[in-house]
Amino acid sequence: MIRRLAILGVGLIGGSLALALRRAGQVGRIVGAGRGQANLARALAEGVIDEIAATPAQAVAGADMVMLAVPVGSMAGLMREITPQLAPDAVLTDAGSTKCDVVAAARATLAAGSARFVPGHPIAGAEKNGVAAARADLFADRDVILTPLAENPPELVERVIAMWQACGATVETMTDEEHDRIFAAVSHLPHLAAFALMEELAGRGNSELFFHHAGSGFRDFTRIAASHPEMWRDIALANHTAICAELDAYVAKLQAIRAMVAQGQGDRLMDLLERASHARNEWARRHASKRK
Amino acid sequence: MIRRLAILGVGLIGGSLALALRRAGQVGRIVGAGRGQANLARALAEGVIDEIAATPAQAVAGADMVMLAVPVGSMAGLMREITPQLAPDAVLTDAGSTKCDVVAAARATLAAGSARFVPGHPIAGAEKNGVAAARADLFADRDVILTPLAENPPELVERVIAMWQACGATVETMTDEEHDRIFAAVSHLPHLAAFALMEELAGRGNSELFFHHAGSGFRDFTRIAASHPEMWRDIALANHTAICAELDAYVAKLQAIRAMVAQGQGDRLMDLLERASHARNEWARRHASKRK
Repeated sequence: MIRRLAILGVGLIGGSLALALRRAGQVGRIVGAGRGQANLARALAEGVIDEIAATPAQAVAGADMVMLAVPVGSMAGLMREITPQLAPDAVLTDAGSTKCDVVAAARATLAAGSARFVPGHPIAGAEKNGVAAARADLFADRDVILTPLAENPPELVERVIAMWQACGATVETMTDEEHDRIFAAVSHLPHLAAFALMEELAGRGNSELFFHHAGSGFRDFTRIAASHPEMWRDIALANHTAICAELDAYVAKLQAIRAMVAQGQGDRLMDLLERASHARNEWARRHASKRK
Repeated sequence: MIRRLAILGVGLIGGSLALALRRAGQVGRIVGAGRGQANLARALAEGVIDEIAATPAQAVAGADMVMLAVPVGSMAGLMREITPQLAPDAVLTDAGSTKCDVVAAARATLAAGSARFVPGHPIAGAEKNGVAAARADLFADRDVILTPLAENPPELVERVIAMWQACGATVETMTDEEHDRIFAAVSHLPHLAAFALMEELAGRGNSELFFHHAGSGFRDFTRIAASHPEMWRDIALANHTAICAELDAYVAKLQAIRAMVAQGQGDRLMDLLERASHARNEWARRHASKRK
């Protein structure tokens, strides 16, 4: 049971956490802070939070659980701002989509206080932003990855695990390096690849001709290109090494396909498409039921 | 009203056409032919077709409407096979995803008979194949592109338009070159790009580590990688010039993004992501309601 939860960034993730914990009866008072006043006012009006704090530092005063749910590029500044006010028994956690950079920020700004920071990443995005998109069931049957630090006392990690389990999520732990390598491939690359196609077509003088005829395959392929630009800029810069490696592998694969197409190598192309199609069908059979 | 409809290739598209025309009361008898005997038997058992013809040539004998719904690489051989049996009043049309190659095949195999061939492409795919995936409403509120030939008598084009309108589709006409350029960008490229990511990850020794953590963004981005490999091999080879041009533009865009990421050019990256996100939201607002 969380007595006082401070949510810094009451958007899709922060707002959904508030709704889920409230529905589970696992939270007392919820205080929110953030940059968008209209968004905060809406969160308060809809009962997602109980109180708007004037500053992040005021929000965390007296809180036993602090959630940082802001773009990863804003984490270090926010940590610096709240450190003086953190209660000695508080657990600090985050929902950032990259972990190595957030861990580095915590160690740089919190110093010994990094023992109270348990890094996390709920695998539950959406292309919608803001508290208006928040839902109490966003984390139900979803995975949450924690990348605990060597200096975290186990009981603090347990408190973060219990919080996410109360939201219906399954918690898994791994190292921050593993996390960033895996999500570069299965999340960061697809997002950048979807943004790339959308921007390429939008930049053409006759873009409307293309957009008018785009169908359901295009719709699904580009859905994530509607995602939050600032969030994705921060992710791309934070995880640049792993992302550049994935972009290189992806471009090499596209160029291999181009060579097969240009040279009419139907058999090689067929083999590649069959492996891809088989892998996608297997993935759907084994994993997709969890991906709402 | 179609008296006798011959469907060559009773899969998702051919089967759905049969179901839609029957529901609309716009067809008498439906004869099917194809390569998969189990699929044809299912189509007959479920009443999608009234009769299985032993060969495509037998199917078209006496038909006043003939639909070629096979992968585009099979069109020329099929046209050669059925030409001797085509009734003088028959209209021949197709559902191929590329048009220039199918038009060339028609002129080469049908000779003067190409006047009776009205090329078409219903924009209603799915990653599912076979008659099991067929639905009477597959074409409702969807676009069908026709690329009529200069030698087509207008009344034959009208018969194909009427057939698709009876299925609830909106019919648009353009040239085959226009068609192939547009769909290289909005359909063929996204398909190959989805196949590429899936095959890249599936080929890794630790692919299960990635697949286990792939979420809803990955799911949507790769959905079309489950598509029919033979169909997509044929499309890639048939429309190779336009597809290679699109692959080049896409790779150049990905490499531009990689440079911004590697060099930490946050402002340039932010501009690009904002243009993409804005374009995707605009597209959804203006077009997506039609894309089930």
